[in-house]
Amino acid sequence: MSAIILKIPTRGPACHDFTHEVQGWLHQIGAREGVVTLMVRHTSCSLLIQENADPAVQRDLLEWLDRIAPPADHPSMGYLTHLAEGPDDMPAHQKAAILPVSLQIPVLQGRMALGTWQGIYLVEHRRAPHARQIVASFQPN
Amino acid sequence: MSAIILKIPTRGPACHDFTHEVQGWLHQIGAREGVVTLMVRHTSCSLLIQENADPAVQRDLLEWLDRIAPPADHPSMGYLTHLAEGPDDMPAHQKAAILPVSLQIPVLQGRMALGTWQGIYLVEHRRAPHARQIVASFQPN
Amino acid sequence: MSAIILKIPTRGPACHDFTHEVQGWLHQIGAREGVVTLMVRHTSCSLLIQENADPAVQRDLLEWLDRIAPPADHPSMGYLTHLAEGPDDMPAHQKAAILPVSLQIPVLQGRMALGTWQGIYLVEHRRAPHARQIVASFQPN
Repeated sequence: MSAIILKIPTRGPACHDFTHEVQGWLHQIGAREGVVTLMVRHTSCSLLIQENADPAVQRDLLEWLDRIAPPADHPSMGYLTHLAEGPDDMPAHQKAAILPVSLQIPVLQGRMALGTWQGIYLVEHRRAPHARQIVASFQPN
Repeated sequence: MSAIILKIPTRGPACHDFTHEVQGWLHQIGAREGVVTLMVRHTSCSLLIQENADPAVQRDLLEWLDRIAPPADHPSMGYLTHLAEGPDDMPAHQKAAILPVSLQIPVLQGRMALGTWQGIYLVEHRRAPHARQIVASFQPN
Repeated sequence: MSAIILKIPTRGPACHDFTHEVQGWLHQIGAREGVVTLMVRHTSCSLLIQENADPAVQRDLLEWLDRIAPPADHPSMGYLTHLAEGPDDMPAHQKAAILPVSLQIPVLQGRMALGTWQGIYLVEHRRAPHARQIVASFQPN
């Protein structure tokens, strides 16, 4: 099997590191040389490769995204019209537009060629709990 | 043939859904398991995977992008120097830098593994009509 | 060999065109039809496909990114907590979150199917000199 659907439960805005799940699956299928593609199947959360050392990076990043795309009840967001699902809905789509929906990571000698400080994250933008799905597909060279 | 150039005519800022063109081409070439890569051949429009249900999402998204990267004749944009092609030119490059230029979508059993609410869009950032090209390439597993 | 690590030395914020390095490598390995994947192994610089004609585009783009994600000593950034590496550190992570970390470019008849005005860039976000690495991997159709 060279494709799988990974499942990540979320409980509000946060970065979920799933680097080990991807690496573990690559090991399981005997992947050696190629590229792994990850695609999230939603439009209100994102994928991200970011620093895995200081948790403050993730906290500052989420805070910054909230300032670029504030909740719909913020005074500056009066122009929003997609409001049915609550004040965190449209900003989630906005964040999902500028953060990656798909990532491709080369695999060398069985391991993802990430840098030392790079982790792979699902970034949840919604406040309510969600069950998120990511499709992973491995393509050998 | 496992690659094709799709052509989309545009008439000002808008989101053009071309999900069916991609799926139709994958069916035509008999694609089963693998990954389809899409890359837009321009630097003033973008690709995007976004919600395909409520059109208000696209409208709010374009409005938000205009506020992040306003036209060059907006008071806040006096620092811009790339002005030769008009006030919508440099903002188009700015939007094209933060929205995807390439997308990768896993294909399972002949169908793109998109979520229920995901559509594939070309997002036009320029005001004048343009003929846009997207390269699609399918890689089997 | 269908993968390589390209190395780019940087000296402060700038866009480094490495289109020719990638195309040269594809020629060297005899690549004909497929997709080349590029992934940068860092979280404080980015990859980008942008206009290769007027250098003002790159200058305006870097200036705009500085306004979206100002240095940590800017009055508006008092909420940042990841400060250990200096005022240009957290903004570099922010820029790296919204610009691409990976790119995929279809290869047709041995050449990347880029548009006439598209170049491939490493965008450095940090002020100090860095030795950056990009993994390139070619997947034939």
